[in-house]
Amino acid sequence: MHNASCVLYGPGSIQFEDREIPQLCDEHDIIVRIAYVGVCGSDVHFWKHGGIRTMVDPQKGIIMGHEACGIVHSKGKAVKSVELGDHVAIEPGIPCRRCKNCKDGQYNLCKAVKFAAAPPDSHGTLTKFFRIPEDFVYRIPPDIPLEEIVIVEPLSVAVHAVRLVDIRPGETVVVMGSGTIGLLCGAVAKAFGASQIILVDIIDRKLEFAEQFLPCQTFKPLSNASPEENAAALNKAFGIDDGVDVVIEASGAATSIQTGIHVLKSGGKYVQTGLGKPNVEVPILTLSEKELLVRGCFRYGSGDFELAASMLVKRQLDFKSLISSISTFEHVVDAWEKTARGEGVKNLIKVQD
Amino acid sequence: MHNASCVLYGPGSIQFEDREIPQLCDEHDIIVRIAYVGVCGSDVHFWKHGGIRTMVDPQKGIIMGHEACGIVHSKGKAVKSVELGDHVAIEPGIPCRRCKNCKDGQYNLCKAVKFAAAPPDSHGTLTKFFRIPEDFVYRIPPDIPLEEIVIVEPLSVAVHAVRLVDIRPGETVVVMGSGTIGLLCGAVAKAFGASQIILVDIIDRKLEFAEQFLPCQTFKPLSNASPEENAAALNKAFGIDDGVDVVIEASGAATSIQTGIHVLKSGGKYVQTGLGKPNVEVPILTLSEKELLVRGCFRYGSGDFELAASMLVKRQLDFKSLISSISTFEHVVDAWEKTARGEGVKNLIKVQD
Amino acid sequence: MHNASCVLYGPGSIQFEDREIPQLCDEHDIIVRIAYVGVCGSDVHFWKHGGIRTMVDPQKGIIMGHEACGIVHSKGKAVKSVELGDHVAIEPGIPCRRCKNCKDGQYNLCKAVKFAAAPPDSHGTLTKFFRIPEDFVYRIPPDIPLEEIVIVEPLSVAVHAVRLVDIRPGETVVVMGSGTIGLLCGAVAKAFGASQIILVDIIDRKLEFAEQFLPCQTFKPLSNASPEENAAALNKAFGIDDGVDVVIEASGAATSIQTGIHVLKSGGKYVQTGLGKPNVEVPILTLSEKELLVRGCFRYGSGDFELAASMLVKRQLDFKSLISSISTFEHVVDAWEKTARGEGVKNLIKVQD
Amino acid sequence: MHNASCVLYGPGSIQFEDREIPQLCDEHDIIVRIAYVGVCGSDVHFWKHGGIRTMVDPQKGIIMGHEACGIVHSKGKAVKSVELGDHVAIEPGIPCRRCKNCKDGQYNLCKAVKFAAAPPDSHGTLTKFFRIPEDFVYRIPPDIPLEEIVIVEPLSVAVHAVRLVDIRPGETVVVMGSGTIGLLCGAVAKAFGASQIILVDIIDRKLEFAEQFLPCQTFKPLSNASPEENAAALNKAFGIDDGVDVVIEASGAATSIQTGIHVLKSGGKYVQTGLGKPNVEVPILTLSEKELLVRGCFRYGSGDFELAASMLVKRQLDFKSLISSISTFEHVVDAWEKTARGEGVKNLIKVQD
Repeated sequence: MHNASCVLYGPGSIQFEDREIPQLCDEHDIIVRIAYVGVCGSDVHFWKHGGIRTMVDPQKGIIMGHEACGIVHSKGKAVKSVELGDHVAIEPGIPCRRCKNCKDGQYNLCKAVKFAAAPPDSHGTLTKFFRIPEDFVYRIPPDIPLEEIVIVEPLSVAVHAVRLVDIRPGETVVVMGSGTIGLLCGAVAKAFGASQIILVDIIDRKLEFAEQFLPCQTFKPLSNASPEENAAALNKAFGIDDGVDVVIEASGAATSIQTGIHVLKSGGKYVQTGLGKPNVEVPILTLSEKELLVRGCFRYGSGDFELAASMLVKRQLDFKSLISSISTFEHVVDAWEKTARGEGVKNLIKVQD
Repeated sequence: MHNASCVLYGPGSIQFEDREIPQLCDEHDIIVRIAYVGVCGSDVHFWKHGGIRTMVDPQKGIIMGHEACGIVHSKGKAVKSVELGDHVAIEPGIPCRRCKNCKDGQYNLCKAVKFAAAPPDSHGTLTKFFRIPEDFVYRIPPDIPLEEIVIVEPLSVAVHAVRLVDIRPGETVVVMGSGTIGLLCGAVAKAFGASQIILVDIIDRKLEFAEQFLPCQTFKPLSNASPEENAAALNKAFGIDDGVDVVIEASGAATSIQTGIHVLKSGGKYVQTGLGKPNVEVPILTLSEKELLVRGCFRYGSGDFELAASMLVKRQLDFKSLISSISTFEHVVDAWEKTARGEGVKNLIKVQD
Repeated sequence: MHNASCVLYGPGSIQFEDREIPQLCDEHDIIVRIAYVGVCGSDVHFWKHGGIRTMVDPQKGIIMGHEACGIVHSKGKAVKSVELGDHVAIEPGIPCRRCKNCKDGQYNLCKAVKFAAAPPDSHGTLTKFFRIPEDFVYRIPPDIPLEEIVIVEPLSVAVHAVRLVDIRPGETVVVMGSGTIGLLCGAVAKAFGASQIILVDIIDRKLEFAEQFLPCQTFKPLSNASPEENAAALNKAFGIDDGVDVVIEASGAATSIQTGIHVLKSGGKYVQTGLGKPNVEVPILTLSEKELLVRGCFRYGSGDFELAASMLVKRQLDFKSLISSISTFEHVVDAWEKTARGEGVKNLIKVQD
Repeated sequence: MHNASCVLYGPGSIQFEDREIPQLCDEHDIIVRIAYVGVCGSDVHFWKHGGIRTMVDPQKGIIMGHEACGIVHSKGKAVKSVELGDHVAIEPGIPCRRCKNCKDGQYNLCKAVKFAAAPPDSHGTLTKFFRIPEDFVYRIPPDIPLEEIVIVEPLSVAVHAVRLVDIRPGETVVVMGSGTIGLLCGAVAKAFGASQIILVDIIDRKLEFAEQFLPCQTFKPLSNASPEENAAALNKAFGIDDGVDVVIEASGAATSIQTGIHVLKSGGKYVQTGLGKPNVEVPILTLSEKELLVRGCFRYGSGDFELAASMLVKRQLDFKSLISSISTFEHVVDAWEKTARGEGVKNLIKVQD
């Protein structure tokens, strides 16, 4: 025992419990001593509603958390890629490795994946010790501040989106929504050679942060203009004649999605990373006539964490500036509430030293 | 003069006029003696409404028609690919050849394209003689019935859609809508190696025709079921566990689009060829979570007519069965009305012998 | 015990031994009762030389064989895709599922793969009972003659090659070499929509067989002409102006490789499936100036066996005609000798009923 | 007249002549007042041997030069993208715009291209005035030193190569050969997000220049080691376990080509930009077993000049450092001789102010 964990039993109902310390089951397993866990919008939704699609079992509960980093505590005898004491980023979804999607190189689409904090029985990282196969942790040198490693998870979401939409050097990229994922998508697009990044948001403070965080331009849509009008205004504002090359939608809002379709050039590319309402009215005729490419986007896959980790190691972004607050393990609810109120960029929970 | 042409001046207002015979302007030009012109739904819309997006100039009018075949009547001195008297299929959109889209290999997205029957000044093929550069006609051997050559145009639309969605051997394909384009998309998908083709329509007669026209299965959605329910019913009916590989949407109807998204597997591919209402509610969350690839689709591009023409020459489909009626040039309105009433698959107009 | 096996100890040194019957180790394992094993050129090389690159351990020996089919004999408790008594094709290389190549969808490039009959300790299929995870067997309905299932392995090699070179409908394909792999590559290219297949070989008998086996044309290079001359002669013989779209090299011979490069059009695609001498003189300037795409090709990967198995189930080829002889288990050397002498297309060994 | 031009009549035989000033032939034409012309290895070969593949006509001669920049002198009435007086980079090959390669987006493979200084009748840029369609010049702001614009041509070669081999962020790239093209390929690979660039050359001075020019590491192969040994030594020197991701071959030397194949990882990518002997011994078995992707590479195509020009405008490289000397128009032979002796990186000729 002695594995203190933050367990959700239903909407708003959490409890700190001493669960069993996980054991090495396979010779490739490692046990990570969790250091920090980040809060994501989905955690907040989960906490408030008791689940997303699948609800938590009110008897068994589920350990929360999926953005995490820590220190290698023990390891199976076949483990070669990390040593005890290494700092690691954690990729929190372990696929089955056997299904067609896994073998095709799309393990993010595996139906049998064990993703952290997914009911009924895939527990999360808000716990002192966490078991994971070695190929789902990524060693980070000790000179990188431990808390910054948490950012590797959302950064991997951005890497995955930018790869899916295949951003090429010289392209002009509009990012709809300047939250954590939008900011990181913009930064990754820049690292992939995009020549111009335009962040779009309706909150001035977010646009100001974006301009400090990465070399970009910003645009604030008018609330009384149509998506088509806002798209035209954006293109005009930046002297773009035929529309932009790429849109990364990172808000999930209906008007953002619509503006994103209208702002693209013929033959442009669009990726949907933001999650919002299940059904949204889409300008489908425009999508056809401009022969757009639209990509759905789900979590991250092969190589995404690796690339995100290398961006951290090379200090390619100002990771520190993204961390807005650090709550103690006991005050996890404070971190969720801050995130729920839209305070800060990324709020962390310190699990243990 | 002596170039009898069918000219539209406004909604429902057509006139037969003797326009000037076109002259060879460039050494690569040819003049085609038009033989047959097919009727497409867009012609009917055009005739009834006086245009699509851009309206016809009521002073100048516009010569109608864009699905056409004919016989080479004269040719410029540099023309080498055809001889006088050759039967040819006509690709009715001539791009500028200079813009980025043209040079990138996507001439269907050229903004300066001269497409047949597009106001204000790009006249169509419902005329005795038509000028076109040699690289936009495709020689068809004389043993192929001349009227069947008209089918090369809609077949090129299908070839383009199937290429865009990159159908690979072994894949399961659902085609939403069993009109001319849906039928041809199904047939092309089969020729590209798809292992199973399922045509979906709400009209029994169309599904019956589909089963005769190509090796396929058919599905009729229930009108009182939701798109999600119809998608589940389709997958169940054909023993498909995880959803189909590819959807080709060829109806433009909102419920078809929604059913198409729901019927796909994770990682599935979708192409929108049908044109309907400008804005449609789309299950965007499903699109994201299944990481779908959605392609808009517009007309046809490099190599599409070539491949469609080769399918005709090799008799890969029962082209004859698609031709439902042949009206004389003077009775063009009959052909449009038949199409407006949904009669037949493809109604033709015979322009001259 | 009672697992009679054909074991190689060194060049030409084989022995029949009763090895231990394999046990289920993992809940996804199955034990297959081997029925037939095919002979491949590499088996013969292995038998004569005691290995390829890595030599067999003369103490431990290695069980031979890798093209195999059989009947499910027992299965782990998690196995759902097959039942006892099912006929199955066997994919004989089990990757580690953990390395970057595996997770990227290229498990054929896994360095830790356990491939049948690979020294020092990865035993082959020339044995009565063989253990394998369920996701590496493919159920074949009982109405397909059991011996034909062996062909699924070389057919997967062909499927892999044709996919790598991305053959598209309408393309012209030259296959250099009309052995088993060449024939199967031609047949798969046809199934992928290639419009014209030209098989090239220097042995008349093989070209005659090819013409019966698949709808193709054939070409016999002149032995006293240069590769460039033979390439020009081939293009001329078939009225091809600018060179062919695709070359599949399935002989490994230097002159074939050279002719293949010269016969391609600018922008053409080439895949190397034949294995011959380690170093070959290649017309590299032609490769550059025509901006060719050249693909190496190694074994088979995700989806290849599945597609090959479906071609068998649908009777897409005359599989029966490829089976030239069936030797009994005790007469395995006869089958190897026939293959060494170039007799027949595919010689089989019957392991048990 | 009054269009002084440098004309080649045969090996080593050049003459300065007053040729006719070109006239605007098409409404999209412009006349450029040539400012600077760069010297490329192919110019030197051409001058010494009287041609490459096709020889110059000794009666008509051919105007030399193809790396050029200048100032817009006059323009056709349809020209909108440039104004008189604008500084422009010149893309010196005008394709036919009508053939399949042109329409497919691969105009660099057009057989009917008019490439500067290609016999018999496509004259080059070593002349005071040069005619070209507007879509083959690229406007450069006047604050960029005029002479640096010449670098856009070789930089486009590098952009084309890097795009063909599809370098992705995080990849490790080895460039074989540290001449102008090798240096530029390394720099472009960096701009495309490559994480590590290793320049290989046998001349110390070139490696030293490389280290100053771009953030890279360098490797000097041992002359007495085999290509396989040098490849192993390179990987060892940089702590690369499984081989590098990408090789750009920019020397054309046989040992470089061989080392390049051996240094790659399984599944690695290779592009051949260097031109050397027509036939080279290639480790084809390694190419197969590692399932390598090998691309030929020829000139540049759609978007390459555009991207290269944008790198100049954004000052992404130290263009100035590449310019080693500037000769006057009358002393063109000096510039060729310097290049022939391997002096400097890029030697220029100043044609007029």
